[in-house]
Amino acid sequence: MHDTIVFTRGVPPTDAFPTAQIAECLATAVESDAAVVLQYGQQPGYAPLRALLAAEYGVNDNEIMVANGSLQLQDLLAAHLVRPGATVLTEQPSYDRAITTFRRRGARVVGIPLERDGLDVTRLEAEVKRQTPAFLYTVPDFQNPAGVTTSLEKRRAILEIADRYGFWVIEDIPYRLLRYRGDSVPMMRAINPDRVITITSFSKLLSPGMRVGYMVAPSSLAAAVTKEGENTYLSPVLPTQAAVAEFIRRGWMAPNIERLKELYRPRWEAMMSAVRRYLKGVVASEPDGGFFVSVTLPADANTRNLVARAKEIGLVLTEGQAFFADPDEGPMPDGERFVRLPFCAVTPEQIDEGMRRLASLL
Amino acid sequence: MHDTIVFTRGVPPTDAFPTAQIAECLATAVESDAAVVLQYGQQPGYAPLRALLAAEYGVNDNEIMVANGSLQLQDLLAAHLVRPGATVLTEQPSYDRAITTFRRRGARVVGIPLERDGLDVTRLEAEVKRQTPAFLYTVPDFQNPAGVTTSLEKRRAILEIADRYGFWVIEDIPYRLLRYRGDSVPMMRAINPDRVITITSFSKLLSPGMRVGYMVAPSSLAAAVTKEGENTYLSPVLPTQAAVAEFIRRGWMAPNIERLKELYRPRWEAMMSAVRRYLKGVVASEPDGGFFVSVTLPADANTRNLVARAKEIGLVLTEGQAFFADPDEGPMPDGERFVRLPFCAVTPEQIDEGMRRLASLL
Repeated sequence: MHDTIVFTRGVPPTDAFPTAQIAECLATAVESDAAVVLQYGQQPGYAPLRALLAAEYGVNDNEIMVANGSLQLQDLLAAHLVRPGATVLTEQPSYDRAITTFRRRGARVVGIPLERDGLDVTRLEAEVKRQTPAFLYTVPDFQNPAGVTTSLEKRRAILEIADRYGFWVIEDIPYRLLRYRGDSVPMMRAINPDRVITITSFSKLLSPGMRVGYMVAPSSLAAAVTKEGENTYLSPVLPTQAAVAEFIRRGWMAPNIERLKELYRPRWEAMMSAVRRYLKGVVASEPDGGFFVSVTLPADANTRNLVARAKEIGLVLTEGQAFFADPDEGPMPDGERFVRLPFCAVTPEQIDEGMRRLASLL
Repeated sequence: MHDTIVFTRGVPPTDAFPTAQIAECLATAVESDAAVVLQYGQQPGYAPLRALLAAEYGVNDNEIMVANGSLQLQDLLAAHLVRPGATVLTEQPSYDRAITTFRRRGARVVGIPLERDGLDVTRLEAEVKRQTPAFLYTVPDFQNPAGVTTSLEKRRAILEIADRYGFWVIEDIPYRLLRYRGDSVPMMRAINPDRVITITSFSKLLSPGMRVGYMVAPSSLAAAVTKEGENTYLSPVLPTQAAVAEFIRRGWMAPNIERLKELYRPRWEAMMSAVRRYLKGVVASEPDGGFFVSVTLPADANTRNLVARAKEIGLVLTEGQAFFADPDEGPMPDGERFVRLPFCAVTPEQIDEGMRRLASLL
């Protein structure tokens, strides 16, 4: 009963991994193309995987770059795009590691408030008028950490602003294919591929430990970021990329994604119903997919030292502040009241018990 | 007869890869530890591999960090150690990619002339007196590109200076175990482990495409560089690291190194005898192992446009200038006359014919 319940990391559970299939694909990929897979080279990523992804996205092979995970790509992109004094915009809240990465490359990171249907477009334009950013970083589908999906109208409005003022939009879409209800909203690159850098990975669809992430971008940018990569790690790790190509070639990806949705859907339902049951009247995201529900606790709730008090009763939470881009400007009341609730790596029973504990603290 | 002969890259030939064994180790490693190998985590590297390496070096596990290749480690180390305005010292000539990496992290890179038994210690001390460097980067065994091995006396002298003035020495030792004659010189870390960061990889012993490189360093430094890595790529690629651990655990590493030495020794002999035959009187390194012989052509040899002229007769050479740290200060006569001759990926017949062609140009 008092087992610790962990509501912190957006990681897949072990039973999400198609272990035997991955092992088979690794062995086959190495045996069938050793001269390439075990050698230096393939700086933009393993060519057959790039070809498969190019076909999927309807682009040329030279618009695809595959690297050692998508955070690595974000770091290389920031190294290439961020000049001294540059601003980078993110949603607020946003993925904490992306914020850190952009800061480490010298950017001033400014958060644009996230609403129920995507970021506040008026605030975006006001900020852009002040200083044209190097890029806007957005997670448009089932956002990490909030669970929000950006509406088609807002996607169009954001890209209209990006085109008018001249900056890149990075859409990071690792959760996009894990939709539990409703229809997909078009990707931002479908609206304006000349302004959009799409980044995603196989971490949520196959395995994070393989670290296979990729970027779809105009070929000149892909070439420049590939050069940054070559100067950083010489060549990407190839056996894992080749295994992903083999996995796709065998037709195993679509059924695997269906299996994952069957695994995660009951957890998603359990989290949404536990929020309704235990946190009556609290503002919650109601995501259509992905890994996260989030809640913003009411101003009169007892949120002081929430993470520490939760730990005492066996509930592990992430500090909400971590997802807000501007903690340097003092604590944000929104950050203190923000709770991210990842549901994929916990069972429905754990979700119910965890939410009961959370409610008992407020 | 006029097949192109490639004397450029220090890469292993395809038949150097123990392909079937690597495939088997990948599959076994993933199947036997999927919850770790396919998941996020293990930021300092796959724990069982770190334990095996720690035992090999007689250090604690927390003194080992494994990353996606050793160039990645050099980049992370430079990110951590190079402050604005800092100097980094290298041998001259040195590994071109290391020079580029340190520059990209903001270092002023200064080359210390390399002699037949290691760098010029007097010049090292003079340079250090001018400004204490962040670190000295050295390849003490069968150096890339020159093939030189630093003598024990010079290793001691270098570390005495490093200790007196207070800077790190990075010893990069990827070729060390590929010795074709004579006895090993002690590693620099055996002389003073508090001043030395040892970097190496399995690229030359197993496969470059797997990108498994590691660092042996004091635990506080290993922890700081691990944090740099986590902020850059979140987690390292794990299946390939786990496969290396499995390869070692099965006792396959030592026999594989013996096999590689049997493969490379005739090529090494062919290169040394071809140098003697075709380049009479020319100063050549006579390495005891590794991948490279190098020659410094006489001042009166016709070295103008050597690389371009070689290409016309089907011989691919690397510009010697690339290995010299100070090309910004104008062309170096030494660089123009320096020719690196990698012998591992070419057969004895190709070596003989390639050297005949080179001699015909001078």
